[in-house]
Amino acid sequence: MSDPADLTATEATRRIRSGRLSTAALLEACLDRIDAREGQVRAFAHFDAAQARRAKPVDGPLYGLPVGVKDVLDTSDMPSEYGSPIWAGHRPLADAACVAWTRAAGGVILGKTVTTEFATRKPGPTTNPANPAHTPGGSSSGSAAGVAAGFFPLAFGTQTAGSIIRPAAYCGVVGFKPSFGSIPRLGMKVMSDNLDTIGVMARSVADCALFAGTVANRDLGDPDARLDRAPHIGLCRSPAWDKAAPETQVLWERVTGAVARAGAALQERELPEAYRALDTAHPLVMNAESGRSMGWELLTARTQISDVLRERLEWGLAHPTAELDAALAVFARLQDGVPALMDGVDILLTPAAPGEAPAGLEWTGDPAFNAYWTALHVPCVTVPAGTGPNGLPLGIQIVGRRGDDRRTLAWAQWVAAAVAN
Amino acid sequence: MSDPADLTATEATRRIRSGRLSTAALLEACLDRIDAREGQVRAFAHFDAAQARRAKPVDGPLYGLPVGVKDVLDTSDMPSEYGSPIWAGHRPLADAACVAWTRAAGGVILGKTVTTEFATRKPGPTTNPANPAHTPGGSSSGSAAGVAAGFFPLAFGTQTAGSIIRPAAYCGVVGFKPSFGSIPRLGMKVMSDNLDTIGVMARSVADCALFAGTVANRDLGDPDARLDRAPHIGLCRSPAWDKAAPETQVLWERVTGAVARAGAALQERELPEAYRALDTAHPLVMNAESGRSMGWELLTARTQISDVLRERLEWGLAHPTAELDAALAVFARLQDGVPALMDGVDILLTPAAPGEAPAGLEWTGDPAFNAYWTALHVPCVTVPAGTGPNGLPLGIQIVGRRGDDRRTLAWAQWVAAAVAN
Repeated sequence: MSDPADLTATEATRRIRSGRLSTAALLEACLDRIDAREGQVRAFAHFDAAQARRAKPVDGPLYGLPVGVKDVLDTSDMPSEYGSPIWAGHRPLADAACVAWTRAAGGVILGKTVTTEFATRKPGPTTNPANPAHTPGGSSSGSAAGVAAGFFPLAFGTQTAGSIIRPAAYCGVVGFKPSFGSIPRLGMKVMSDNLDTIGVMARSVADCALFAGTVANRDLGDPDARLDRAPHIGLCRSPAWDKAAPETQVLWERVTGAVARAGAALQERELPEAYRALDTAHPLVMNAESGRSMGWELLTARTQISDVLRERLEWGLAHPTAELDAALAVFARLQDGVPALMDGVDILLTPAAPGEAPAGLEWTGDPAFNAYWTALHVPCVTVPAGTGPNGLPLGIQIVGRRGDDRRTLAWAQWVAAAVAN
Repeated sequence: MSDPADLTATEATRRIRSGRLSTAALLEACLDRIDAREGQVRAFAHFDAAQARRAKPVDGPLYGLPVGVKDVLDTSDMPSEYGSPIWAGHRPLADAACVAWTRAAGGVILGKTVTTEFATRKPGPTTNPANPAHTPGGSSSGSAAGVAAGFFPLAFGTQTAGSIIRPAAYCGVVGFKPSFGSIPRLGMKVMSDNLDTIGVMARSVADCALFAGTVANRDLGDPDARLDRAPHIGLCRSPAWDKAAPETQVLWERVTGAVARAGAALQERELPEAYRALDTAHPLVMNAESGRSMGWELLTARTQISDVLRERLEWGLAHPTAELDAALAVFARLQDGVPALMDGVDILLTPAAPGEAPAGLEWTGDPAFNAYWTALHVPCVTVPAGTGPNGLPLGIQIVGRRGDDRRTLAWAQWVAAAVAN
């Protein structure tokens, strides 16, 4: 029997329900793994083994499953510091809604995971479990690394540009950014009202469906269920393709070949030129909304904001609000165009990241393959798809229609299986 | 010279800038008024005169102007209790973004104003300044009553159904619900992500433009500036017309007559039948989103939630999420229809409330004339328009196009002037 710390959540649940695994044994396996590896991985912003052992999980769909919570989400019993010294030691009264629903379903909050500063650019100390000299990606750094390292089978992430899909791909786990607004945001440090999206990371697509479906009060189905046909897939290298590293070009050929052999009907489906408007509209919305949201920090704790973030916020604030309105109108117009873009295909296939995780911990990588989809509010899944020249994980991204999360997850699992064969 | 406590913000600012009024004298006038009337009005959830006197306002567009802050908005130096015993004594670390920008512009936060429970139905103790036996309306009860009573010239409110426009009308002040998303929500207790809107109350339309424009980083113009023509007005009794009390029917004839005499071109412009879908979609979105947001309170403090709210939250949670999605699709479809609805007119004129403020404090009144516009995300202004049979204030509501807040405010001032003549 494999180490319980490496089980998927759904497999752990099966073993718990059939009496082959206790929730205590699962927890201890995770704690052992943390003990062995956290010194190098540094996934946690807050972790207390004794506190985790005191939890008395209720019997629900997440019964006894350890969960990592990105530290932009409030917890009533743990510090919530948002990756910023301004909020050091901050103890909210309440759990974020998604944390409360996790506990209500039996999940055990194992700790708070490292986020970049306010889920923006400045990295935390987390390393990539596959190679500590490389970034785990960000901003959901600790959640991705922790799932990969066996610290917890489930974790929350958030995405404003590429903060779930990219670190999940870099760390070799499954990442799921649901349709915008699926998971309630009360208790999240929401900076960009029209972009910030809560999502999840796990070791399988089915785990993502279980976890996200539970906290979103949505039936996301069983992605492992057999499908009655192969998908129609739109191949979308996307306008970011010029940033695709050689390993991504190789990956693209390998993955498209694998899904074709598995029976998928493939079409090239590039984003029309109009979508290039997102190159300016996305950063404008992100930074203008964040600047307007961060009034208290800018006014009372300016020197404790990193230079890189302060510059971004000031850049966003310096843009006239009419430009923000215009950028949001671009979002709306292009969102309305997604059904036409996806006409005749079930999903789009597109890179999850430019390549392997970059070397060094100073930069969490480029969200160029993610920001478009975040702005379009569509569901995105990354599934592991082998490794690159340095032995680091690669992912491939599946994009669906807004609101079509259930089928998107099912097709993502179909792709994952095709790629693994 | 009139009592400074009764000045509009713009007039107080003129006097301060010209040296005819000191910020200290303005503050003391407000404090005197509070001392005289708060025992009956009960507008404040938190008020501390000494704390208000200690504020050192910076020289900005709101220099020295006292501001009331609805207690669903966080303040770093005052309790933030959201109208709920669950949050009694809660002290957030940070100011809500809109509060921070208020202070940055020189505003003096005078206190936290009474909100109904989590800005929903269960009232606080506030009474109507025009008659303490009547409700001030809700949920922004203390903000509306405080502006009317001379406690502060400016106040924040929030609206999910009719929580700014209705209490402003009941109390005889100007209420402005901007286009959805105009004022950043970080630090607000956001329960319904697709409805909750921060707005303002004041004693003139120009004050609303000054205050909301400042905190939203938007130039909302000078509504007192002379316009080069009279407006084209769509007269919209709205589907709620069967709830219009006799005084509202009289008001309607009086107001439409006044704007016609002042030169407005009038057209009947009823909401097409399709908009009746909001009768079910609005409460569904409000309660389903709120139920999903309120996980922590429902799970850890259920008995401290009022029966009426708990029932609503549970009703919202009991609806399958697919119904929430469908209701949001109704919102989007009807929002897209607003330009056609308003084709050929500058604004819509519609009642602000069914009639005068109801007697008693147990019920804050019916938002039937407000919920549609909140769901449509359009800017709404109510301006005072005389009194009803019991001598209580009446308002009339001006509705504009989303994003067209500046012109909507200008036309609202045009209507206010026409009605006052």
